[in-house]
Amino acid sequence: MAEHTIAIIGGTGDLGFGLALRWARAGVPVIVGSRDPQKAIQAAQRLEQTLKLHASGESLQVSISGTENAQAAAEASVVVVAVPISAQADILKSIRGSLKGAVVVDTTVPLAAALGGKPTRMLRLWQGSAAGQARELLPSTTPLVAAFHNVSAGVLQDLTAMPDCDVLVCGDDDAAKQAVFPLIKLIPGPRPIDVGPLEMSSIVEGITALLISINRRHRIHHSGIRITGLDSQS
Amino acid sequence: MAEHTIAIIGGTGDLGFGLALRWARAGVPVIVGSRDPQKAIQAAQRLEQTLKLHASGESLQVSISGTENAQAAAEASVVVVAVPISAQADILKSIRGSLKGAVVVDTTVPLAAALGGKPTRMLRLWQGSAAGQARELLPSTTPLVAAFHNVSAGVLQDLTAMPDCDVLVCGDDDAAKQAVFPLIKLIPGPRPIDVGPLEMSSIVEGITALLISINRRHRIHHSGIRITGLDSQS
Repeated sequence: MAEHTIAIIGGTGDLGFGLALRWARAGVPVIVGSRDPQKAIQAAQRLEQTLKLHASGESLQVSISGTENAQAAAEASVVVVAVPISAQADILKSIRGSLKGAVVVDTTVPLAAALGGKPTRMLRLWQGSAAGQARELLPSTTPLVAAFHNVSAGVLQDLTAMPDCDVLVCGDDDAAKQAVFPLIKLIPGPRPIDVGPLEMSSIVEGITALLISINRRHRIHHSGIRITGLDSQS
Repeated sequence: MAEHTIAIIGGTGDLGFGLALRWARAGVPVIVGSRDPQKAIQAAQRLEQTLKLHASGESLQVSISGTENAQAAAEASVVVVAVPISAQADILKSIRGSLKGAVVVDTTVPLAAALGGKPTRMLRLWQGSAAGQARELLPSTTPLVAAFHNVSAGVLQDLTAMPDCDVLVCGDDDAAKQAVFPLIKLIPGPRPIDVGPLEMSSIVEGITALLISINRRHRIHHSGIRITGLDSQS
């Protein structure tokens, strides 16, 4: 997949770090973005160390760097935004001028916890979803998909574990989806599943709150969802 | 499970008929409810014929009857409400005076199609969900759970098929959930999964719209969802 360079905006957070780890391991050049370039560089170093620990003797060929968010976005062909809802708008504004035709993958989940509420409840955004908010804040020409909302960040960060879930992909731009699907397939476990237009993210984002509720109720940590009835499709 | 008699309010509709079929087959006494008692009786006869067709020689011991909704509710210990959102409020009002301590299972999904909108979009109810609306319309002492939103009615109606999905159960009353779980287990395929309080139905109901979107996108008919990470729990 060397045709893509992936920037992870918010790559120092749990989900961003987990995704960076998986893609770097699969050989994709990864740029960790953070508001603080020092933190981004440290996260990149931590990624490399984690991968070396797990490579155990095998030769390790990875390309990982860290830099400030807008710079990271400028250098990538796929820009994954993995930031809390409280930071989403500001960060999208800070990177939108730097995008060079990249596909943006929004992963934001508007949990009520952002306002001090319960993590099992959702905020209702005027645009219907965090993805809808991203659509509004990005240039209309920026290809946008929403995905990865329901994948356990903890499992992604644990290279000995395999995510037992699917990645539901929402978007209005089929070419953008097609660009992202092979990247999802590089992560062992999840199937990428096209669930329809971007507005479906309203429901997909909510599933994260549902999984948090299931985790609490069953005293587990990594519930997930799988779609049935698709046969071998992706 | 002869300790329960199940009334299916809206038992002439697809989901209601499918559930009635599965429970009657498992030996549970079933009362089909409809606004029109004649239609209820016809549906009960159709259920019996369908079961006879599939019994093929085995002796068939079923108890199926049909009557008007309020009468059906009065005779049952579990009352499953399987009606369109456009009928939910009126029908709950029509049966609430007849309930005799029964557990009510609401299955309503507020699809925008009820107002001529898309079946992949949801209506926002003031109470947060169709289950929340049911909670408000029923006596506060009525035990209420929300479930079965995401099960394919078509698969339930086809006795040669097995639903490949879980049944997500929402509710604030643990005893009511415990009463419903064994009934769900009588249907081959789905696991009953406690997903937390009744308010989670807001998200569970939305998953139906998501599955409809997936069905359209992939030209399939019976997508479903399974929860992972639970081990063998129910």
